[in-house]
Amino acid sequence: MGERIIGVLGGMGPLAGADFLARLTLATPASRDQDHVRAVLWSDPTVPDRTEAALGGGPSPLPAMLAGLRVLERAGAGCLAIPCNTAHLWAEKIAAATALRLLHIVDAAAEALAARGIRGGTVGLMGTEATLRLGLYQERLSRRGHACLFPDDDEMRRLVTPAIARVKANDLAGATGPLLAVARRLAERGAAAVVLGCTEIPLALRGPEAAGSGLVLIDTIDALARAALAWARGG
Amino acid sequence: MGERIIGVLGGMGPLAGADFLARLTLATPASRDQDHVRAVLWSDPTVPDRTEAALGGGPSPLPAMLAGLRVLERAGAGCLAIPCNTAHLWAEKIAAATALRLLHIVDAAAEALAARGIRGGTVGLMGTEATLRLGLYQERLSRRGHACLFPDDDEMRRLVTPAIARVKANDLAGATGPLLAVARRLAERGAAAVVLGCTEIPLALRGPEAAGSGLVLIDTIDALARAALAWARGG
Repeated sequence: MGERIIGVLGGMGPLAGADFLARLTLATPASRDQDHVRAVLWSDPTVPDRTEAALGGGPSPLPAMLAGLRVLERAGAGCLAIPCNTAHLWAEKIAAATALRLLHIVDAAAEALAARGIRGGTVGLMGTEATLRLGLYQERLSRRGHACLFPDDDEMRRLVTPAIARVKANDLAGATGPLLAVARRLAERGAAAVVLGCTEIPLALRGPEAAGSGLVLIDTIDALARAALAWARGG
Repeated sequence: MGERIIGVLGGMGPLAGADFLARLTLATPASRDQDHVRAVLWSDPTVPDRTEAALGGGPSPLPAMLAGLRVLERAGAGCLAIPCNTAHLWAEKIAAATALRLLHIVDAAAEALAARGIRGGTVGLMGTEATLRLGLYQERLSRRGHACLFPDDDEMRRLVTPAIARVKANDLAGATGPLLAVARRLAERGAAAVVLGCTEIPLALRGPEAAGSGLVLIDTIDALARAALAWARGG
């Protein structure tokens, strides 16, 4: 296991990148340090905002992401994990710019759904405006037989978008209630599971409130960490 | 704040390295991603065990640590944080091999004591056998007027050492009771605060049991993260 090095393009946001490494560690069967896999994390929170770039004409995050990619390549990484859903709107351009294997977060989420026994059918999706409106999940999940349900405009504006901003400002507790309320509504409208398709969202849904909700919540940071672990073990 | 890049030599253990980045993020006053600092983490859990090398004649961790250091230098890091107390037994050799500023974890712990109003006097210290027996903390803390109290041999063998191994095997909950029991005994023997001088220890003391214990516990991962943040802001 020591040979394959996981490359992590992080910082988008920085807590999601750190959490990716923690989930990777906790998902590894280990009895001592040396059983764990090697990784290198480039954490650059100064990458321009992905939602503003995709929807509002803000500066592109691509040059900064490619600069981080070069750091990971030089460090000897063999794969690339990006613990930021919205950044995957640039996934094809990033994959075209490197020989590293890109572990796509939507594929990781689909594997996590399958692992929970959910193959096909309607799933809910929460994420940034850009992730939802630009269809990051829809096409990839429809190939696996899933239809996607989203929060409506009012729920996005009042609940999801402000909650994501709260996590980025380190107010995790303040984001839990609104996010859980929206997940519940998606389940009521027919979603068998709710994909937490922005890496800030699972950070606010790790407590007992979410665990006791009875909802099937797909944590995309954890899903991506498990995909990286499978890669490191030769999968 | 975007110019200074924090270099983190992690993986010893891997959860402590990930947690360092999380504490760094949570300690940063921020309202959006771009307010956070840049960092690069080399997480190499395959570094030979530091305690075995220091006490038992096992292979030296120094070559692997220096290899990681080169990765951080090439990535543009300007300082070096090592979220592993025992690894600091090699701190002088590492500092001599690089132009990067080494942020020493014992100095960070001393700053955290001062921030809690504890300047001089007796403090308890929990850590690995190697950290305690080879005097990593004692001299540096005595220069600041502190005397150190340690767990006795029996407490080390029955409680502290097995608890550290539990954290490295991802059993955080199982480590909490024994570690808290030893911290309480050190306080009863006169320690005004207990320094958690192994980065695995605070990971098991983040829950309500430790918070409600009434003990002053110095979290060395958090202390090192705050020192790194101060450096990144030009301190």
